[in-house]
Amino acid sequence: MLKGYTHPRTVSGVSSIVPSPPWHYVGDVMAVTFEASFDAVKGLLPKGLKPVNNHCCVYFIEWQYASDEGREYLDPAYSQYRETIFLISASYKGETVAYCPFIWVDQDRSLMRGLIQGWPKQLGETFLTRCYDLPSKAGVSLAQGTEHGATLFANHRQLATAKIKLQNITKALPTPTFSGAMLNRYFPELIKSEQAKPKFDELVKLKSRDVSVSTIWEGDAELMLFDHPYTELSCLQPERVGKGYRFSIALTVDDLSLCADD
Amino acid sequence: MLKGYTHPRTVSGVSSIVPSPPWHYVGDVMAVTFEASFDAVKGLLPKGLKPVNNHCCVYFIEWQYASDEGREYLDPAYSQYRETIFLISASYKGETVAYCPFIWVDQDRSLMRGLIQGWPKQLGETFLTRCYDLPSKAGVSLAQGTEHGATLFANHRQLATAKIKLQNITKALPTPTFSGAMLNRYFPELIKSEQAKPKFDELVKLKSRDVSVSTIWEGDAELMLFDHPYTELSCLQPERVGKGYRFSIALTVDDLSLCADD
Amino acid sequence: MLKGYTHPRTVSGVSSIVPSPPWHYVGDVMAVTFEASFDAVKGLLPKGLKPVNNHCCVYFIEWQYASDEGREYLDPAYSQYRETIFLISASYKGETVAYCPFIWVDQDRSLMRGLIQGWPKQLGETFLTRCYDLPSKAGVSLAQGTEHGATLFANHRQLATAKIKLQNITKALPTPTFSGAMLNRYFPELIKSEQAKPKFDELVKLKSRDVSVSTIWEGDAELMLFDHPYTELSCLQPERVGKGYRFSIALTVDDLSLCADD
Amino acid sequence: MLKGYTHPRTVSGVSSIVPSPPWHYVGDVMAVTFEASFDAVKGLLPKGLKPVNNHCCVYFIEWQYASDEGREYLDPAYSQYRETIFLISASYKGETVAYCPFIWVDQDRSLMRGLIQGWPKQLGETFLTRCYDLPSKAGVSLAQGTEHGATLFANHRQLATAKIKLQNITKALPTPTFSGAMLNRYFPELIKSEQAKPKFDELVKLKSRDVSVSTIWEGDAELMLFDHPYTELSCLQPERVGKGYRFSIALTVDDLSLCADD
Repeated sequence: MLKGYTHPRTVSGVSSIVPSPPWHYVGDVMAVTFEASFDAVKGLLPKGLKPVNNHCCVYFIEWQYASDEGREYLDPAYSQYRETIFLISASYKGETVAYCPFIWVDQDRSLMRGLIQGWPKQLGETFLTRCYDLPSKAGVSLAQGTEHGATLFANHRQLATAKIKLQNITKALPTPTFSGAMLNRYFPELIKSEQAKPKFDELVKLKSRDVSVSTIWEGDAELMLFDHPYTELSCLQPERVGKGYRFSIALTVDDLSLCADD
Repeated sequence: MLKGYTHPRTVSGVSSIVPSPPWHYVGDVMAVTFEASFDAVKGLLPKGLKPVNNHCCVYFIEWQYASDEGREYLDPAYSQYRETIFLISASYKGETVAYCPFIWVDQDRSLMRGLIQGWPKQLGETFLTRCYDLPSKAGVSLAQGTEHGATLFANHRQLATAKIKLQNITKALPTPTFSGAMLNRYFPELIKSEQAKPKFDELVKLKSRDVSVSTIWEGDAELMLFDHPYTELSCLQPERVGKGYRFSIALTVDDLSLCADD
Repeated sequence: MLKGYTHPRTVSGVSSIVPSPPWHYVGDVMAVTFEASFDAVKGLLPKGLKPVNNHCCVYFIEWQYASDEGREYLDPAYSQYRETIFLISASYKGETVAYCPFIWVDQDRSLMRGLIQGWPKQLGETFLTRCYDLPSKAGVSLAQGTEHGATLFANHRQLATAKIKLQNITKALPTPTFSGAMLNRYFPELIKSEQAKPKFDELVKLKSRDVSVSTIWEGDAELMLFDHPYTELSCLQPERVGKGYRFSIALTVDDLSLCADD
Repeated sequence: MLKGYTHPRTVSGVSSIVPSPPWHYVGDVMAVTFEASFDAVKGLLPKGLKPVNNHCCVYFIEWQYASDEGREYLDPAYSQYRETIFLISASYKGETVAYCPFIWVDQDRSLMRGLIQGWPKQLGETFLTRCYDLPSKAGVSLAQGTEHGATLFANHRQLATAKIKLQNITKALPTPTFSGAMLNRYFPELIKSEQAKPKFDELVKLKSRDVSVSTIWEGDAELMLFDHPYTELSCLQPERVGKGYRFSIALTVDDLSLCADD
């Protein structure tokens, strides 16, 4: 009898690339809200979601992960990874929701956890300025007037770059926000007679619990997306850039909601 | 209407991480046959396959890939990747077949094509000696008496190392062989009330066409597997090492067979 | 007229892999003091340094770097890198000093700055637990009783792993310490008639200024070094492990002292 | 007594990142000749070299390396690396020679061997189409009419891309050629009172022996260089692209010539 939440499955189950949920996360975030072309946003929505506005947000994140009892933070080469998430706005049953059309991560375990939830993950490299409470020309602290940068690369090319200047503390997280975002869990079929239809194609809603958020800093922002031979991310090129944000967030994932399409 | 064989799906479909099949492959292979513990082999078989013997084979491969009309070999950063495949033996409806319990690849596109077929792919780095027809202490040609090496690493640690010494040309590919291998297409469920069962768990049989193979060299071989904190590959530690092989292979994939579990 | 502090030199000088000093650094450190074999420590000392004791220290560091006016922290893919430094003890003109026999870094710019100072840098990957002030099973804060891990890898293999448990705040940095360490600036000659002697081989002493250090946490520690085919780091395998430390440090480098050998 | 051709130096000498020469190399090459702006070429020449024409050549190479008795080709993760070399033309004492202003490599050992010779090496990733003698849409053989591609990336960005179409066999290697090229061995000084002058700055001429070259294929070519935030390579943007080449080459390095400047 094979065990393991995912492949590779073995007698013990310990080879599984992803252990059973719950999955715990804590990370440092730099985010930028922006408005893209309404037609571009509309063109990325799956069946079941309706266009509502052109509001988007990009999150650059350094994550640390652990399973329920694993204390994987003691093995930082295993537990740390970096991610960039793009969220767009949509309407679902009359409610404005977030939807993720593009996301990049630098680790296979995170990629697999993502596919299970419906995140359309690909490999990419994310970097964001770190904050230090020491006087140095090499860094800044988390304080008014400081500037911070972030970048995303994939397939040896730059995809996005952002810069923010902190101005004030705020109570509100940027929107659209990834907690409770909707995703399109989609998996193709290779069996020839069935290739025309996916093996599954369903709308889901993320569930997270035990969410806690640090002080949230807000400020001015710049954001640029770059053309790339293998992805159309730059269709979301900002028409207007909103605010920039820095905060830390912790959350736990062990559930998902299936949504009806219509 | 979203298009694309896989995520990320867009209006055009060109952002899809994997284009629609057919997928064409050509690669250089170093392979080593070996016998592992019968119990270890038995312990890795999914429902529907019965243990038959302890015969295994590892393939270290440098691949070049292209879609049907894409000529991606002109973009080698996109089309080249490296892979190590472990195959074990099993019995399916009275026939001896190959089954893959472990495989490592160095690219997200190949990982995704793999998941679609049922390969239990993880990220890892594969290296194999290249052959040159020039006199040099830095290399060997593909000829009798020459020695060749290969290694596999994953998560910053060595997983396998092999060495072979070519002796003669043979007509037979090593067995178990990956053409026509059986896989366990397995995908977990995250919806809490359904987590006890996978979203799908099915036995499939690979189909490939237009297979062509170069001259096949055979010889003596050594193989060692290493303990690793995240995988149990070393449960297949050779009890006896068989032959080593070098050859090139080309093949096309655009179909898959679903097998009854019986 | 070519310009640039290092190669590649051009008319403008902007292609130089390393700009002119000063170089500013700020980073998060996890350190472990230990005692190695006295003979091993003695065997690693260059001409001009005498053995004095077997006290060593390893530093795992996440650095952020900037040149004098460049604000490179806004380009974190350029300015961030990670490093592991091993320091051993020695006597120089009657004074106990630190000497670096082994160091690994993950970036060519840092490698080059290192060679200019006499650090014997090679490429390697360093990871250390990050601290967060949020309740999460995925992390810890910088507080009494918390546990932290660090690891070093090079050439696809593990070289070192450490774990610490914070107990109290201390005023003293671990020793031997890298500020003011002595290095062996050594560069070989390839001209055949002169290969027996290096192009230069000199003892130098690091100079840094504007050093500032955060609160220093101290606690119990574990440390293991691993055998590796290309390096003899494990000759320093701890006979006794001392204390573990966590702190942040900022410093500026723009000078070096040449030392007489005797 | 410390041993080792380079750092890190130990009692045994085996930790040295680069062993004593001779160093043996064998590799597959794709090259493209081109003409750049004469002023750009002139602007990259060091003291001692005079401008002569605007002829340049780029070499994309997959190398395999070994020391004299080490047979490192059996450890392909150690011995294989990839490199892109740019050569421009110059006049030295009335003779037309090759000079290297820019070069990228993907391994620290090769980077260090390069610095010893005077190559201005930085880290970068090179890819070139591989040739296979099997019918496949995923590849081409080394034959008339086949098309081949190559690309160079550094710091997560594309630097160069080339495409060639083979037309005929030729006897002549492309020029300027790297065998016998001139380099500027340059090392900065950090001691503050001496920073204005480099530690050394000398013109050298490469020496190689036991050079052997395969059949050389020649054909039409395309080449593009890309702007990059940290390097001025694109100052050599082709004004005219010459021919493309594919061949394999083996050579041995264990000497260097020092050249007078004037």
